[in-house]
Amino acid sequence: MADGHGEGLQLRSLITREGELQLSLVKVPTPEPGPEDIVVRIEATPINPSDIGLLFGAADMKSAQRKGETVVARVPEAGMRAMAPRLDESMPVGNEGAGTVVAAGSSPAAQALIGKKVAILGGAMYAQYRVVSAASALPLPPDASAADGASCFVNPLTALSMVECMRLENHSAIVHTAAASNLGQMLVKICLKDGVPLVNIVRSAEQAKILTDIGAKYVVDSTSPNFMAGLIAAVTETGATIAFDAIGGGKLASQILSAMEAAAVSKMTAYSRYGSSVLKQVYIYGSLDNSPTELIRSYGLTWSVSGFLLTPFLGRIGQEGVMRLRKRVVDELKTTFASHYTQEISLRDMLDLDILAAYNRRATGEKYLVNPSL
Amino acid sequence: MADGHGEGLQLRSLITREGELQLSLVKVPTPEPGPEDIVVRIEATPINPSDIGLLFGAADMKSAQRKGETVVARVPEAGMRAMAPRLDESMPVGNEGAGTVVAAGSSPAAQALIGKKVAILGGAMYAQYRVVSAASALPLPPDASAADGASCFVNPLTALSMVECMRLENHSAIVHTAAASNLGQMLVKICLKDGVPLVNIVRSAEQAKILTDIGAKYVVDSTSPNFMAGLIAAVTETGATIAFDAIGGGKLASQILSAMEAAAVSKMTAYSRYGSSVLKQVYIYGSLDNSPTELIRSYGLTWSVSGFLLTPFLGRIGQEGVMRLRKRVVDELKTTFASHYTQEISLRDMLDLDILAAYNRRATGEKYLVNPSL
Repeated sequence: MADGHGEGLQLRSLITREGELQLSLVKVPTPEPGPEDIVVRIEATPINPSDIGLLFGAADMKSAQRKGETVVARVPEAGMRAMAPRLDESMPVGNEGAGTVVAAGSSPAAQALIGKKVAILGGAMYAQYRVVSAASALPLPPDASAADGASCFVNPLTALSMVECMRLENHSAIVHTAAASNLGQMLVKICLKDGVPLVNIVRSAEQAKILTDIGAKYVVDSTSPNFMAGLIAAVTETGATIAFDAIGGGKLASQILSAMEAAAVSKMTAYSRYGSSVLKQVYIYGSLDNSPTELIRSYGLTWSVSGFLLTPFLGRIGQEGVMRLRKRVVDELKTTFASHYTQEISLRDMLDLDILAAYNRRATGEKYLVNPSL
Repeated sequence: MADGHGEGLQLRSLITREGELQLSLVKVPTPEPGPEDIVVRIEATPINPSDIGLLFGAADMKSAQRKGETVVARVPEAGMRAMAPRLDESMPVGNEGAGTVVAAGSSPAAQALIGKKVAILGGAMYAQYRVVSAASALPLPPDASAADGASCFVNPLTALSMVECMRLENHSAIVHTAAASNLGQMLVKICLKDGVPLVNIVRSAEQAKILTDIGAKYVVDSTSPNFMAGLIAAVTETGATIAFDAIGGGKLASQILSAMEAAAVSKMTAYSRYGSSVLKQVYIYGSLDNSPTELIRSYGLTWSVSGFLLTPFLGRIGQEGVMRLRKRVVDELKTTFASHYTQEISLRDMLDLDILAAYNRRATGEKYLVNPSL
């Protein structure tokens, strides 16, 4: 290849059998594109919580240190069992990104994208170049930058899937936690547009203000002494019986189920020792708090707490459903699905221990954007 | 009515607005049976954990004391919210029972049952007489006593429903906890007959022996230091991905999910940071341990922990399915569905503080049978 994309840097995460995490940058040749493929120069790729799972694995990042160009950290014994399938495998990271098409295979569809900005999905985005099929790329509108398109898939499709899931499982209103996140703000805008009542749970008055400023009607602060009363009132008024929880750990999922049960019981005419017959569902889709989920089972027996994962859910709504959601993301890229980033960093910055500690905090409302072309 | 069944004693449970539980025996007139009804003299009715939920509500039974003929106990403030729908209502108790038909309405179907022994369901069984529709009663085989038929519904139908649920949700083997219980022994026998691999989790070597003695193949003792290794081995060998948990509290549900994930990961060829794609389901159907359920989420995102309740499940399999299960219960009443009781007690004994403490322990393998005709 001619114009400098023949090789490029790629971030790698490796966990050794001895229990050491190693993060490094390696120079890799860019694969030759097939007829239907395009070569994308990655210019913007976000660090999502789901990326951090692959990046750090079960390593204790408090033990992180530099050894030359490499970051190393210890993986505690207890975490090694879950790491078994990835041991001694040097893995590329980065779910999604956007950039400019700098080369393409011979097919007209691929050739047509040369010079265009596209959003792409599929791993290995923390790299200077990425080869994907032209069909899988989402061409960005002419006025969109790579940064605008960097988070086209994970957050937008997850937020849209929550509303799809609500409808599919016959609920009519949603509870969402860590609701001031980028994803949470998207969900507020989607629900406002679609007329879906949404109860937003946040962890500070500042976060509450972010949401009321964009029109959120129900916002409850879990750090407030009136949290449970406020949550019960909002759940009763909206009739929410499905929740999506990004926190995972602690009592929050259980508190949501309690509030849903209190709302259901207040509408019951006869006592049942098994609680209300309304299905109360909490989906845990994130793990901002890694501590155990504590279920204080005071809400009868008609409840469920489950993991929620985007890809299998998209399988449930089928190809047609996915295309509908993708189209909506492009149509509303700079409004509903606008992301906000705390800082833009380079690939090398990802291995800076201070910057690493900052993006590993996963604080709600803070998000890092990597620009591998820097 | 002539032959002494015009009135009878009935146990009542009342929680007052002031937070006092009151258990008492009241004399109530037996309702006149309609044309399709029968009057059953109750001779055997078990104390199931699910009965205890209604009997004691959220009361702290350590505070129980006698005031004349009545047992009173305090309901802690925290428990009162869930009690709201039953406050100041004097409630009869007792899910199921069996006895002799001593009178009947005019219809031939009802008349045909006079003098027969039947098993019945529907609450208010801790009483000397109970009127139900003839159609809902299950006539017992001639060689069966009332005690044989006392537990025809809750345990047998729950055990059968577990196997039905496994098939309905596309699993092929089951994990069961508190597996030495009456219900657990039934499940062992059903699974042996039906060729369903079953992993039994017990809490002592004595309980393990009860199950291996009746032919159980996989028995793991959660008090053993090798518990997790044994559980993983059994789950890997059986391929169990659904569990029914009677304990509820603590880490057990989470340990089962971990074992299922370890089994699934051992069969994976490529690493996924989201864990295996096999759905791992734990149904909590009891609460032998009232402490919070602790989910240590180290098993990816394809899992679910849900409440399991018999009646809505029977709704899922429909009238035809229910009739099929009922028929099997009668056919195998003295084999698969034989129950064992620790002690037979009278209605008055239920209000004896020592006996009350004994049946409230809900120890696995211990079960009390009430004979209101004593």
